This record gives sequence, C-alpha cells and structure tokens, in this order.
Amino acid sequence: VNLASVETPAAVVDLSLVGANISRVVDYCRSHGIGWRPHVKTHKNRRLAQMQLDAGAIGLTVATPHEARVMSAVTDDLLLAYPPVGRVKIRRLMDLPEQVRLSVALDSVAVLEPLAKAAQQAGKTVGVLVELDVGAKRVGVSSAAEAIGIARLAAELEGVEYRGIAFYPGHIRSPQTEQGPALAQLSQVLADYLGSLGEADLEPRVVSGGSTPTLFRSHELPQLTEIRPGTCIFYDRDIAGMGVTTWNDLAYTVLATVVSVAVPGRAAIDAGSKALSKEAFRSSGDGYGVLLEHPEVVVASLSEEHGVLDITNTTWRPKVGERVRVVPNHVCVSVNLQDRLLVEEEGRLEAWAIDGRGRGLAPTSPVGV
Amino acid sequence: VNLASVETPAAVVDLSLVGANISRVVDYCRSHGIGWRPHVKTHKNRRLAQMQLDAGAIGLTVATPHEARVMSAVTDDLLLAYPPVGRVKIRRLMDLPEQVRLSVALDSVAVLEPLAKAAQQAGKTVGVLVELDVGAKRVGVSSAAEAIGIARLAAELEGVEYRGIAFYPGHIRSPQTEQGPALAQLSQVLADYLGSLGEADLEPRVVSGGSTPTLFRSHELPQLTEIRPGTCIFYDRDIAGMGVTTWNDLAYTVLATVVSVAVPGRAAIDAGSKALSKEAFRSSGDGYGVLLEHPEVVVASLSEEHGVLDITNTTWRPKVGERVRVVPNHVCVSVNLQDRLLVEEEGRLEAWAIDGRGRGLAPTSPVGV
Repeated sequence: VNLASVETPAAVVDLSLVGANISRVVDYCRSHGIGWRPHVKTHKNRRLAQMQLDAGAIGLTVATPHEARVMSAVTDDLLLAYPPVGRVKIRRLMDLPEQVRLSVALDSVAVLEPLAKAAQQAGKTVGVLVELDVGAKRVGVSSAAEAIGIARLAAELEGVEYRGIAFYPGHIRSPQTEQGPALAQLSQVLADYLGSLGEADLEPRVVSGGSTPTLFRSHELPQLTEIRPGTCIFYDRDIAGMGVTTWNDLAYTVLATVVSVAVPGRAAIDAGSKALSKEAFRSSGDGYGVLLEHPEVVVASLSEEHGVLDITNTTWRPKVGERVRVVPNHVCVSVNLQDRLLVEEEGRLEAWAIDGRGRGLAPTSPVGV
Repeated sequence: VNLASVETPAAVVDLSLVGANISRVVDYCRSHGIGWRPHVKTHKNRRLAQMQLDAGAIGLTVATPHEARVMSAVTDDLLLAYPPVGRVKIRRLMDLPEQVRLSVALDSVAVLEPLAKAAQQAGKTVGVLVELDVGAKRVGVSSAAEAIGIARLAAELEGVEYRGIAFYPGHIRSPQTEQGPALAQLSQVLADYLGSLGEADLEPRVVSGGSTPTLFRSHELPQLTEIRPGTCIFYDRDIAGMGVTTWNDLAYTVLATVVSVAVPGRAAIDAGSKALSKEAFRSSGDGYGVLLEHPEVVVASLSEEHGVLDITNTTWRPKVGERVRVVPNHVCVSVNLQDRLLVEEEGRLEAWAIDGRGRGLAPTSPVGV
C-alpha cells in the first residue's frame, strides 16, 4: 500500500518532519526556560499528542470538553483554554478522570461561579487562569481591576484555585521579522498586569501565552512561564508566509487528484472546501493553498469538492489522474475536515484517527444526553 | 429534552420550514415542466433526501462515491455530478447496488475511457452527461467540437451510454433581480451547443443545469430538462443576500452560547470556524454569519472555536450563558462540520445523522482498501 493507491482527497502527515518540528519547539523552549503546553486543536490525535509529551511538553492545551476527555488518556495535566459555559460542558469536565489536573482560562464571574460550584460538588479542585485581552479583541478582561476581581474570587471560592493568567497574542500576525515593537508593547502590558496583581497579593504562578506566529520570539516576553502554540507541529501556508518556518518543514498536505484540465489555464483537483477549507490567506497573496511540489501554482478558487488551480504561471502541465499535494492556508481547519490522517514513516503508511474531532456525539445518540 | 438543554454549538433544522422549502421548489419545477434532482451535498442525510423524493424529486445528485452509496438506499436514480478519477472511486461506483441507474457528468476522454472499461467489466451501463463550461471556469468543455467528440465516444463505447449534457451556472451569483442578461446569454450558449449536437445526431435527452442562486429563473433556460439545486432545502445568508428567498425561510441555524462579554463592543460565542466555516460573505457586507433573531448582529471574526459578534450596532445586550442562533454564510460547509443535525418538529427534537459526510472511511480501517 502506498500513496499512489489511496482514494483522494487524503490528509497526509510526514512523521519524520513532525518529529523534527516537535524537537525544534522543545529545544527552543528548553533554552529559554519556557514550558510548552501544545494546543491539540491542530491534530486532535492522541499519538501525536503523546509524541509531544514524550519530547518534553509539560501538558496539553484543549479547547473543548471532548478534546479534554480524549487527551486525558495521554496526560494528567490539561488546560482548557476556553470558558466552559453550560450544564453539559461543565458536567463533561467534571467527568474527566480523577487524576487529571485541570486548569481553565476564563474572563468572568459568570463563568467562574458555576464552575466552582460544580467542582465543589464533585469534590474536585479546578485551576483558574484569568484570561486577559492583550489586543486580539476576542475574549479576556481589559483592566487590572477586572483581573484582580476574578483572581481574588477564584482564590476564595471552594472548588477552584487561582493559578495565574492567560492571554492569546492572536493580533500579532505580521511577518516574524516585524513583530518586535508589538512584542515590546505586549511585554509592557504584561508587566503592568503582573505589577497590579502582585500588589494585590495575587501574583500568578502561571503566565500562559503564545501562538505559533510569535512562537520563536516568546523569549521577548520574559514573564511567560508557558506557551501554547499548536500549529507548529505541522505548519501551513499562513505560517510559512509569516516567515516562522521554511517550506521544507511543512508536515501536512492534502493529497489530491487532477480530475479535469478542460478549462484553459485551469486544472481542477478533487480537494475542495470540504478538504482544505475556504479561509483567506493571511499573508500577501491570494488563493486557498498551493502545491507543495509546484509552489507557483495556487488554488485560485474552491467549490465544495473542486479545487481550481491557476496554471497560467507554471511550466507544469497537469494530466487527468495525476496526483498533487496541496499545502492548505490553515492546517487546523483542514485536519478537522478529514476522516483520518494517513501517516507516512519510512515508507510505511498508517491511518490515524482524528480522535478529538467534533463534539464526540454519536449521530443518533439521544438529544440532550 | 429541548434546545435549552443541548450542548452547543449544535446544528438545528426546522423541519416545517424544510417541508415548505421543498414544496416551493417542487411547485415551481412542476409549473415549468422541469425535473428537480436535488444535490444532496447540502444535507447529506437520507431522511431529508427521502422527503425530497416523496415530494416529487426525480432522483438525486451526488458529488462523491460515498454520497452515492449512502443515497442508493433511498433512490435508484443517481447523478454523480463529478468526474470520477482513480481506481478506488471507480470501484466504489461499480459496487453500487445493481438496480441503481447511475449517470456521470464528465468532460474528458481520460475520464470516460476507464469508466467505460470498468462498467463493461462489471456488466453495467453508466449514463454519460458531457459537462460544459458555461462561464464558471471550473470544469467542462468549452467548444461544441469537444462536446461532440466526448458524446460520440460515449455513444460508441461499451459500458456507457450517452444521455446528454450538464453544466453549472456557478458564475451567475448576482442578486436574482439582476440575472436576466446573464441568463439570456447562457440560453444562447445552450442553444448553440444543442444545435451542434443535433447536427451531429447527438441530441441530448438530458439537459441538466441549475444552482440555487438561479433556481427560480430556470424557466428562462427553456432547454433545461432538470435542475440540481441543493442549498434550497435550507437556504443561508449568501442566498438570502441574493434575494432568492426571505429571512423567514432559513431552515438551518447553528445554536451557540455566549461565553464572554468581557471585550467592549464584542461578545464571544462558542461557534467558531469549526462550526460555521470561515467563508467570506458573497453579497455586500462582511462577516461570517448573522444572528437569526438579531440580524443586525454580524459574526465579525472567527477563530476555530470562537465566534466574535460585533454588538456595537444593536440595542441587544447579551449575557454569558444566553443562547443565540447563527445563520451561516454558506450552509453546506457548516452542515459538513457537524456531528449530527438536531431536527425540530412540533416541539420534538431528534438527532439525524449526516450520513454522507466525509469519505465514508473508518478512522482505522486499513489504508488503501
């Protein structure tokens, strides 16, 4: 069995590149005394998470209760980087195995209080990181007074324990070489928060930040105790476009087949928006992906099952039936569309499940259970 | 069990609106003598397909071998509106139940010949529709000479049968009121093709076209024998923005929970790009969806699990824990992201599987089988 015989589209992972990508992050973090708590949203796979942990990751970051349950099989140290709201989600967290040391990032008393009550009733202690908005304008408090209020309540309530702060620098997406001023400004913002929290006797033990675009400049934020980048296990066109990594490190591609060359200047492949996702490219340029072996060829448009390649700027002349490998703009959402990962290692090919995909609900299980 | 108690994000379908949407299409098609062969890519669900067939659909359109297999349980008349390329895909088509009358739209000899050979070996006859490019620049031949060449070969080869032509007017996405000139031009293009095919003694029995944006103007293409719109079972923000339907017909929404109101002017919900898909809005305006009950509130940005609502233009003041219903830009790709559909009918709530989702490959089944 080899890639030439598999049905397309198929998600293909190069395991030796994954290993090298993991080592690079671990080495960087070790040399700067920062913990790596990879976000598993990128791969949602237990075996890849185990590789990250074996290499030195201090625990895992998850976004959903389903990811938490799936990953509790490989680690006892989980951060839910998402405010859990609603009876079902909180119950799912309480149902995690007893040995799991869970922390949760949240930004309101409205999230904190029900969580603390449920944890107390379950006889558990959940760690709390107060989420700060440092510019992404998504979630997070925007003043030291708010942060202190939530941190103090977390320190007082039964069932929870104040552990520190978290933030997501998702607004810093410029090329890596241009991130200096934004990171210097962020460092000052963090220093101010830490000063205020310290004065309130709420010094955080954990300062959790980080994203893949800013990954290798994390040392410019000396306050960090841990970072949570996830995309760095595979990388993608967006991240390569920012200069964070090179083309040779791209460990995930979508294998596709040319199905039509009838339209002049175009070639259609069988990877569409249901294999790649129709997310705009974040760096300069357009399209929804490029070919690994022909980086001058862009996926110019996407229908659900068709990717349309622009072949006006290449000497490559595709034929119907030819296989290509597409580098998606955003790998995390492409993985999430797949039935499984085809993992290549030294000529062997194995199917690995995307264990944490979706909500973990059986299609026909009773509603509301 | 009601919607207030289910975990979010959840895909919710209003079955009475689905029924009304189906009836409207069937009534329109009947009054104009056009067959409706709905594309199942939108819902991928057998029971919804059965409703379409019960109401009068002449068969179903599918895009993948997996959709074909799933839908062969509810109809014997299938059009694969996609060129099947590769050994596995062709074998899957040959493995469809014997009673299935399969047609395939294709645009090259390179696709036709292996298909004919496989069908002949399997003792089957597969219908062929020659795909024309009428402006979408995706797949399809662009001259009568090419169409005649493929049609003639299809008429001659064992294992296949020439049945007609197919096209996709995906380039006509302007507001419905402005489509007149484009449709008049398309009608002339079709007339030219039909004239040439007729002269070559290859008059098509089937002329298959149609998309939801042009659905209710299909009678302006008098050559059509059938149309394939799929989105018209649910509709979405894109289609409503084109004026094809009204806000009251939107039968699919993503139920979400407000998880943060910490950032001024923003509210975060737990439906992100992994529930809505980050596809740009096709009409004037931006964002990735709007709230059904508060259409002035746009999903201004999406992360994977966060939707960020812009609440600067509304008097609505969301609270953490509050439920909202999001109308996605493009319903088909949102459905494709869900574990299941929660179908509401007269106060009852049932989970329906998205049977045709993905490739139908078990996560851990052997590779290449």
